[in-house]
Amino acid sequence: MKTLQEVIQGIRPADAQVIRAAEEYMDCLIKPLGSLGKLETMAIQMAGITGQVKNSPEKRCSIVMVADNGICEEGVSGSPQEITLMLAEHMAKGVCGMGTLSAYANADVKVVDLGIATEYENDAIYQRRIRRGTANFAKGPAMSREEAIRAMEVGIEMVEMAISEGCQILGTGEMGIGNTSSTSAVLMALTGLSAELAVGKGGGLTDEGLLHKRDVIVKALECNKPDKNDPIDVLAKVGGLDIAGMAGCFLAAAHYRVPIVIDGVISAAAALIAYRINPMVKDFMFSSHRSVEPAYDLIMKELGMEPVLNLDMRLGEGTGCPLAFHIIGSACYMMSHMYTFEQFQHDQTYRIDLRK
Amino acid sequence: MKTLQEVIQGIRPADAQVIRAAEEYMDCLIKPLGSLGKLETMAIQMAGITGQVKNSPEKRCSIVMVADNGICEEGVSGSPQEITLMLAEHMAKGVCGMGTLSAYANADVKVVDLGIATEYENDAIYQRRIRRGTANFAKGPAMSREEAIRAMEVGIEMVEMAISEGCQILGTGEMGIGNTSSTSAVLMALTGLSAELAVGKGGGLTDEGLLHKRDVIVKALECNKPDKNDPIDVLAKVGGLDIAGMAGCFLAAAHYRVPIVIDGVISAAAALIAYRINPMVKDFMFSSHRSVEPAYDLIMKELGMEPVLNLDMRLGEGTGCPLAFHIIGSACYMMSHMYTFEQFQHDQTYRIDLRK
Repeated sequence: MKTLQEVIQGIRPADAQVIRAAEEYMDCLIKPLGSLGKLETMAIQMAGITGQVKNSPEKRCSIVMVADNGICEEGVSGSPQEITLMLAEHMAKGVCGMGTLSAYANADVKVVDLGIATEYENDAIYQRRIRRGTANFAKGPAMSREEAIRAMEVGIEMVEMAISEGCQILGTGEMGIGNTSSTSAVLMALTGLSAELAVGKGGGLTDEGLLHKRDVIVKALECNKPDKNDPIDVLAKVGGLDIAGMAGCFLAAAHYRVPIVIDGVISAAAALIAYRINPMVKDFMFSSHRSVEPAYDLIMKELGMEPVLNLDMRLGEGTGCPLAFHIIGSACYMMSHMYTFEQFQHDQTYRIDLRK
Repeated sequence: MKTLQEVIQGIRPADAQVIRAAEEYMDCLIKPLGSLGKLETMAIQMAGITGQVKNSPEKRCSIVMVADNGICEEGVSGSPQEITLMLAEHMAKGVCGMGTLSAYANADVKVVDLGIATEYENDAIYQRRIRRGTANFAKGPAMSREEAIRAMEVGIEMVEMAISEGCQILGTGEMGIGNTSSTSAVLMALTGLSAELAVGKGGGLTDEGLLHKRDVIVKALECNKPDKNDPIDVLAKVGGLDIAGMAGCFLAAAHYRVPIVIDGVISAAAALIAYRINPMVKDFMFSSHRSVEPAYDLIMKELGMEPVLNLDMRLGEGTGCPLAFHIIGSACYMMSHMYTFEQFQHDQTYRIDLRK
């Protein structure tokens, strides 16, 4: 397994020459130029990632990072912490939203324990616990810098494992009661976003609960003073092990030149951390569905991305990724199998230009 | 084959009792209430259509209506009329955008000639020609009322054929140089929309070409005076055979209680005609991708629908339908295979409520 430092230093941008070749090929297909919109840009981006004009990313795997959050002590979540483990076990069993949607997309799911607080035994979960949930970041840092880095390196390990199994496209997901609080804190620290925009109701808070949650997060940021120019400092002080693990996945996917899909706002916050560490990761990322959380749009704006699905989903788990796999797969299949003008003219006795 | 009148009179709304049962079942699945957004509403709508709570619409078929448009004489299109036939033949061969995306979605495509102007021989196309393209509606009606009804009845026939082959979900598509002009004219007549909003550049006009196209359509509407309260009159006077055929498909799908997917703005105009004839058809329709044409949003507003895909596509052919099939299929699979709280609690030694 490579270290975080090796992974970050080894990231190179997408292959500009192959992107040009893919653009030229796309414009040879029998359709008006650009008329398949984002299907075209997705297929071209995929070419820049893999270095091949035609792609077939049919072997798919999502990595779901699970961890508990000490901030729950402050009453920021409507759900008890035990649910983290319960849902992780059901995710590993394939019977949750993520499991069913992934099965339909013919995608594997790896459920990874980075810090579940509750004790358990379950071989279907990859046990890589860094600590039993983060510390309560209202009172001090969520974790040490070294723990954040170790969590990121679990992300690297899981990506390496998926690639060694033949995976051609990755998804990211998470589970952890309280992780919308750590996400909001990370986004406020990194972007200067206000609590009003960054803090939502998560899994289901009341209006009063929301005000309390905002108050807790604002005070926690004042207490921890994360350095916005040091994404790992932000991650360690007010982030979560799940976010750190996903950030590691994004960096590793870029390093190994494998496409990786962002799910909702928590996954997008991890993508933003990876991007702030090394902006070249962007070349390897695909968005999936538009989260209902307002902070999501802000992250997409910084990343220069626009989600293709608009489903008003707010379940998390990684559920946007299997849906995006269908669309990205469609884009690649279209590019690989549509006729070119040359093939078209070969069939015809006359020459005509459809590209206008 | 049923007549248009029989089909229209035999349409009943979606099954409200099964919708309620599906809503109750959806709220028993292990996720916060409503957290899968439109995936939930799609799966519930499907239940109301078929009368069964759980569905698996895996046998899929799109019907692509092809016809030429006499209005092309006015120079409203950037492409020569011969392209209609050429692309129809390639669509039937499966090598266009529609064919490749449908193959990837495991969906059949039926290409139907309702009025190709050019002579040809090709057994891969269903030959149901009503006339050799419409008349130039700048000078008089595009077709007779009886021809419009016959074209709609071809739509009925094709839906009946697809259903007899076991099809569980339908898509709609079209091909016909000049059909953005007939679409704009239909939408202006039905909704009172201005030429500025209703008339776009179609396959690829210049700015000057666009002004000319608007002028031609405004004058054609003045010349024909279609009755906005009589959708078939609008269809006959300023519509197209392809739009009529698709309108017949929407009505037949509702009659036979099979879900049907709207593609872009041309398909949406046909859906609007069907809706104005019998508003209950709406219960059986799904949207797919958001068209870049501004009139599309207006139609969706009247139908009370919102597309789930945002791909900046403007190819037509029906290309949004195979993409939507993946998402609708995902929604149904999720509903059929996700654990209920009862199954969940059976696995657990304690009782906890995740639905908040």
